[in-house]
Amino acid sequence: MITLYGMADSGNCYKPRLLMALIGRPFRHVEVSTFDGTTRSEAYLVKNPAGQVPLLELDDGRTLPESNAILTFLGEGTAFVPDDSFDRATMLRWMFFEQNGHEVTVAVRRSLSIYPHRKAAATEERLRLTLEGGRQALQVMEQHLRKQSFFGGERPSLADIALYPYTATAEEGGFDLSAHEAIRAWLARIEALPGYKPKSWLPED
Amino acid sequence: MITLYGMADSGNCYKPRLLMALIGRPFRHVEVSTFDGTTRSEAYLVKNPAGQVPLLELDDGRTLPESNAILTFLGEGTAFVPDDSFDRATMLRWMFFEQNGHEVTVAVRRSLSIYPHRKAAATEERLRLTLEGGRQALQVMEQHLRKQSFFGGERPSLADIALYPYTATAEEGGFDLSAHEAIRAWLARIEALPGYKPKSWLPED
Repeated sequence: MITLYGMADSGNCYKPRLLMALIGRPFRHVEVSTFDGTTRSEAYLVKNPAGQVPLLELDDGRTLPESNAILTFLGEGTAFVPDDSFDRATMLRWMFFEQNGHEVTVAVRRSLSIYPHRKAAATEERLRLTLEGGRQALQVMEQHLRKQSFFGGERPSLADIALYPYTATAEEGGFDLSAHEAIRAWLARIEALPGYKPKSWLPED
Repeated sequence: MITLYGMADSGNCYKPRLLMALIGRPFRHVEVSTFDGTTRSEAYLVKNPAGQVPLLELDDGRTLPESNAILTFLGEGTAFVPDDSFDRATMLRWMFFEQNGHEVTVAVRRSLSIYPHRKAAATEERLRLTLEGGRQALQVMEQHLRKQSFFGGERPSLADIALYPYTATAEEGGFDLSAHEAIRAWLARIEALPGYKPKSWLPED
């Protein structure tokens, strides 16, 4: 059975867990966390020298980091990846946007706001920049969702799974979603998908 | 013929141009720039409401933003995309790293350092954070390249094309590559690929 190393509270780590739940694929979760230092333990650094989570480990020992790359690997051949090559590129377009425009602002501001060990990094300038950038990213999403139900078109794709976790917790980072009706309706559509599980869910041993 | 809207000096815009040169595919280049305001012109905002470059336009009018998504679309079926699904995910892993760890530090610091219109944004804190983050990203690349010739393994892939442009200009952002021997050897390997063209190259009309 494949193994996912990750932090229960991290949105990046939730992405592959959510996909596994939606496609009904069993996996093992191993908690590795920046809170207790296990991402910096010798045993983990052998697997991922960068010390980041999530990390996927196959039965044969091969490993894959980067949440969105893990999604593409696990999603291949499922209904969450479009057949058409332009549609697949459009799905990836939103996954790159997630990493370059959304995660670095919406997710980073949440982490600066709620984690005690990030307090020193939470300068006034950084909070302002991530607020501005995050609002811009949410505005781009809102505009898109006023025209389409999901980020790959009319059906959910890996792009939705990549964008869901940190959008669902955006308010923890000080972002106000009350005026973003289309985003709130999209969050509800994801939560209504068969097999959906919240971030707190972990597979049983 | 497909059209690429982009800024000649942007590394993100150079990525798809470099791929087209390497695979020998003809295309039309249309200069759209943040310098002269054309990325904010009405005509361009119709094509890309976010006003960003590069943007790919197909003959039928469909458009695709995000440099790395454009690479995946144009690269499909070429030697720059591995056949094996794990290898493809590994290629994408480095392309997500490029957007989340490398572009936001190495490329942003270059832009803050050399573009007059970015001077107000180039605060001491931002220059320090992008320096620290960029050095870390370059260190990750150096470690990898001491073991493998390219980012997808022993053959060049889209991951190399995504990482090349802003690594090649890292010194313009104040990064010192002199101690990164493996990176410098990799840059030379890319520049020796058949069909390689420098950033200044644009296709003839």
